[in-house]
Amino acid sequence: MPIDLRSDTVTLPSDEMRAAARDAPVGDDVYGGDPTVNELESRAADAVATEDALYVPSGTMGNQIAARVHTDRGQEILVERESHVYRWELGGLAQLSSLQVRTFEAGERAVPTPEQVRDGYVEESLHRPGTGLVSLENTHNARGGVAVPPEDIDAAAEAAHELGVPVHLDGARVFNACVALDVEPARMVREVDSVMFCLSKGLGAPVGSVLAGSEEFVAEARRVRKLLGGGMRQAGIVAAPGLLALDNVERLAEDHENARRLAAGVNDIEGLSAPTPDTNIVQVSTDETGPTADEFVAACEERGVLGGAHGEYLTRFCTNLDVSRADVEEAVDGIREAANATNA
Amino acid sequence: MPIDLRSDTVTLPSDEMRAAARDAPVGDDVYGGDPTVNELESRAADAVATEDALYVPSGTMGNQIAARVHTDRGQEILVERESHVYRWELGGLAQLSSLQVRTFEAGERAVPTPEQVRDGYVEESLHRPGTGLVSLENTHNARGGVAVPPEDIDAAAEAAHELGVPVHLDGARVFNACVALDVEPARMVREVDSVMFCLSKGLGAPVGSVLAGSEEFVAEARRVRKLLGGGMRQAGIVAAPGLLALDNVERLAEDHENARRLAAGVNDIEGLSAPTPDTNIVQVSTDETGPTADEFVAACEERGVLGGAHGEYLTRFCTNLDVSRADVEEAVDGIREAANATNA
Amino acid sequence: MPIDLRSDTVTLPSDEMRAAARDAPVGDDVYGGDPTVNELESRAADAVATEDALYVPSGTMGNQIAARVHTDRGQEILVERESHVYRWELGGLAQLSSLQVRTFEAGERAVPTPEQVRDGYVEESLHRPGTGLVSLENTHNARGGVAVPPEDIDAAAEAAHELGVPVHLDGARVFNACVALDVEPARMVREVDSVMFCLSKGLGAPVGSVLAGSEEFVAEARRVRKLLGGGMRQAGIVAAPGLLALDNVERLAEDHENARRLAAGVNDIEGLSAPTPDTNIVQVSTDETGPTADEFVAACEERGVLGGAHGEYLTRFCTNLDVSRADVEEAVDGIREAANATNA
Amino acid sequence: MPIDLRSDTVTLPSDEMRAAARDAPVGDDVYGGDPTVNELESRAADAVATEDALYVPSGTMGNQIAARVHTDRGQEILVERESHVYRWELGGLAQLSSLQVRTFEAGERAVPTPEQVRDGYVEESLHRPGTGLVSLENTHNARGGVAVPPEDIDAAAEAAHELGVPVHLDGARVFNACVALDVEPARMVREVDSVMFCLSKGLGAPVGSVLAGSEEFVAEARRVRKLLGGGMRQAGIVAAPGLLALDNVERLAEDHENARRLAAGVNDIEGLSAPTPDTNIVQVSTDETGPTADEFVAACEERGVLGGAHGEYLTRFCTNLDVSRADVEEAVDGIREAANATNA
Repeated sequence: MPIDLRSDTVTLPSDEMRAAARDAPVGDDVYGGDPTVNELESRAADAVATEDALYVPSGTMGNQIAARVHTDRGQEILVERESHVYRWELGGLAQLSSLQVRTFEAGERAVPTPEQVRDGYVEESLHRPGTGLVSLENTHNARGGVAVPPEDIDAAAEAAHELGVPVHLDGARVFNACVALDVEPARMVREVDSVMFCLSKGLGAPVGSVLAGSEEFVAEARRVRKLLGGGMRQAGIVAAPGLLALDNVERLAEDHENARRLAAGVNDIEGLSAPTPDTNIVQVSTDETGPTADEFVAACEERGVLGGAHGEYLTRFCTNLDVSRADVEEAVDGIREAANATNA
Repeated sequence: MPIDLRSDTVTLPSDEMRAAARDAPVGDDVYGGDPTVNELESRAADAVATEDALYVPSGTMGNQIAARVHTDRGQEILVERESHVYRWELGGLAQLSSLQVRTFEAGERAVPTPEQVRDGYVEESLHRPGTGLVSLENTHNARGGVAVPPEDIDAAAEAAHELGVPVHLDGARVFNACVALDVEPARMVREVDSVMFCLSKGLGAPVGSVLAGSEEFVAEARRVRKLLGGGMRQAGIVAAPGLLALDNVERLAEDHENARRLAAGVNDIEGLSAPTPDTNIVQVSTDETGPTADEFVAACEERGVLGGAHGEYLTRFCTNLDVSRADVEEAVDGIREAANATNA
Repeated sequence: MPIDLRSDTVTLPSDEMRAAARDAPVGDDVYGGDPTVNELESRAADAVATEDALYVPSGTMGNQIAARVHTDRGQEILVERESHVYRWELGGLAQLSSLQVRTFEAGERAVPTPEQVRDGYVEESLHRPGTGLVSLENTHNARGGVAVPPEDIDAAAEAAHELGVPVHLDGARVFNACVALDVEPARMVREVDSVMFCLSKGLGAPVGSVLAGSEEFVAEARRVRKLLGGGMRQAGIVAAPGLLALDNVERLAEDHENARRLAAGVNDIEGLSAPTPDTNIVQVSTDETGPTADEFVAACEERGVLGGAHGEYLTRFCTNLDVSRADVEEAVDGIREAANATNA
Repeated sequence: MPIDLRSDTVTLPSDEMRAAARDAPVGDDVYGGDPTVNELESRAADAVATEDALYVPSGTMGNQIAARVHTDRGQEILVERESHVYRWELGGLAQLSSLQVRTFEAGERAVPTPEQVRDGYVEESLHRPGTGLVSLENTHNARGGVAVPPEDIDAAAEAAHELGVPVHLDGARVFNACVALDVEPARMVREVDSVMFCLSKGLGAPVGSVLAGSEEFVAEARRVRKLLGGGMRQAGIVAAPGLLALDNVERLAEDHENARRLAAGVNDIEGLSAPTPDTNIVQVSTDETGPTADEFVAACEERGVLGGAHGEYLTRFCTNLDVSRADVEEAVDGIREAANATNA
């Protein structure tokens, strides 16, 4: 079995989660009658201190629902140039909500400064669509899992709110940010109007994400979920492992520790470099060594280590709950061999 | 516990299905790596003799994906006036695929005659969007679960194909039609270009539907599923009960028998009438008795029988695998009492 | 020169209109600085007693702007099955405004009864898009230019308003209806929320239509006009003939008289029949004679009379300001010869 | 009368153009029967050496039609960050064609380098919409009317074509670029797949633009024009001045000379600066002087010179055919007084 560091989405559900799937009390969630889903939505809302929450099949659906509910026809959305909602969701912002995208470039900071919010804001006029939503991302995937401190989220949100614009947080890995910075989730999302977080990444659930916000927001989100085909029947079967996933938050610290060990190991290898990660994403640069990311990923795979190419010379390794400290040490060995082989 | 005849979506998964959920081999389906999902898609494609199939969270998503994949920008879709895809899917045809809907009225027959297809067909011109898809429904929900014979499906599909228009079948309950008419599923869908069927209705799975068609169609459908947010990670947990659901096809005959008994019982009650059902949907008319469907549903509920109002004087009862023959007899008693009470 | 009865859109501008085009004071209308356009919009608003009005390049644009301004994302529009906005505008309702269309069939009456409005109305729910607009048409083109009395417009509008739904009137030929019924335009449109009427049909202007409604409605309509690319610069050049067109309203009575003469003449021809027209559209049926409309139109054209096929056996002739009473008599002769020739 | 330098769209039609409007042979262009429109489309196609061309009411409509015709559902368009089609057309790319926008920043160069094309290109995948169109702009309005040499257009287009992506040129002012660089229009647009140019800016026509490309492209563009409501009836009335506008190309050199004089004059004023313009757009910076563009524009207006604020400290003056060399000298005086007044 290779050590799978492609993503934290690849984790397998624990025996406990599997047992929960088997034993879950269920009902027809489209009628609001699934007690396990109801409990999950209630506990998820509590976790981020919002009025309500909605269970959705994927983080993509959660983000796209939020974009549609917050906006009116003919508006713009302001997002980071490398954000997931813009780059990896098949153009859903235009396809599903007819939103014109305006981008800012946040670099390592990952969220916009208040000035970037004001610069990117467009006031509705005869010739221009007004800005209807600002979407943030924490941790920021493409920026290497950087954990954005709540003060930066607050500042961006306040700048948006002063302009009358609501704010959504793509928090697919927001619990990683919370653990890394030792911040309560409710504090982290205090100033945003909605947050999506995934149960199926570092938290280890097999399926599903949560979209949380005000009661009014979630009521409309429920309709859009139906529109997109995300209404599921006895969804408690997958919501039950999701409930247990909410208990996995503290455990993310291990992934972060493992990621730091992995980065440190990589930095000892000639021809490779990796910034010290905030969370569980290690971005390894092979610039100096010659191999492209595609070549390097292939060489690692031959040596039992799975990663992913995220740029021409950028390879991503993502620690997760199926990867132990011993696995990380073994992975470093495999990566070293791969580097030597491709470097020769 | 009331006898729940609101829909066949309310059934609870069996112990066997629950055990399958617990024990399923899983992987990350977004990477194509979930063996249970792969097996389900393969067996589902075999069941309807198509090249490929895709597991989706809901029938609505399956139908909407099909509409988008079959059509180009700026086309029309031809559907029955009371069809699910037009009435109950939140306007997704226009919202998600910008399709203009043209309707035909099929009445009891449920699918269009070849002449209705030709009448509803629009040739693309400078002023008119051309017809891009014909969508059929079997069994037809709003028409009382009528089972459409394959010859009628063939005739409509051939008329469409002669005009160069592909055909989708909303087969949410197509297995009910197959069992009622003693027709192989592969025969039933032989002439259509894609079919969606639900694992979560009469077949009893907790979650999910299947969209089947050619390899090329399913490849593009997979992208649109991602766009709509229907990509799930370790989906094998819910696909495993879905696999067992495929074994429940023959069992649908019991639901149909129960539905006929229910209708017969209802017809013995003064003030009520119900046509003999083809499948598992009993449409009870209270026209002569006075109570509206809303009043009648409430009266039934007080007596432990759950149904749904589907018209001003039309109440629907839907037999399903959680309803035994004894339950049906008890339900008839409850319905009789409700009729007497509201009739007084 | 053939006698052109294809449409009332084919009329050539009068010398007076041409002189007005030459002499119009103009400015940049996108900056609101074209005095002729401003005067046209002001006089047009007065003509139908609305707060404001907007000059648009075509009736199609006027209707599509109205549909978009009146509705929110994810709604339905209720229209007559043969209405122009649904049949001849390239699916714009879905393409430009993502509206799902629901149709009623009004037959000769052309507008819905209050009951048809209530039947077609959909209340927003978890599964259904709510009705956002009812669109009427007067005169109704495909129904043979039928002039709908204001009481019928009122009744439909009141039924819609009771349901909280606004009403748009496609009044491309509303002045024909007003003249035929001897009703003031302001009275005719009293109960609707917006009206579009064409300057370029019976009124004889070369280019343009008007969309009229409340100040708030027109302000937003101006933005949507810009979105669709309908903002023109020194538009006064074409607005000036449009101003003169507003003086052509009473003259429409001649077209109606000519149309009645044409219909009477046609009814004297063996094998042809035509209902007595309300306004300027004569629908000639060749059912009994053998030739299809396409064949019949060709035979007429050979004899110097231009019409159009509007159904398999239905040919339309449309009187207009370039067609005199003498032309009509000549046209009847040509039509008779065509009937004889195709009938032989 | 103030000297109007707000835009080159404000010009008034000449007496010759007005006479042409009066005398134009016209017909119903929706039936293809307007000889003046046909001649204009033919001559316009010749001017840029394309197979065919389409007369449209505005440049915005021309650009939006092109975006829709070139692309398929679910694609991206690559545009410059400050381009007109992205900033000033009300989000039409998303609203009318559901396109996700990706931007490059071209700076003074105004069109992307081949590397920028390749960087911005997205290959269609399971997670990403593929790039369907690259849109260029020449001259580039927001970059100060910079005239892009044909070699730069070629290089960008070739890079796009190597990736299988078509290229549209927003040539609202492409004749300005041709005159400034002494390049034949046909040479300038040789490598692009479609071009839109305005008759109503420097060329002085009251209304309209042209969209040119292959026969197949224009045939589909004609349909989309109809969809957007851009089909006009006796459009020859405005097309006739447009024909004369095509003779105004060489005259643009005067506007450019005037713009250079204006910039030189401005650079002699303390506290103001302006780069030497390539064409007819002078961007005056008031950074050092204190007044914002809004304040400065107001001060100029009081002194009889009309300009526009195009940035916090950036004011635009645009020479045009209603502005003589003497007007420019007078304008410089007014601007000087305004600078002194706001600077005090």
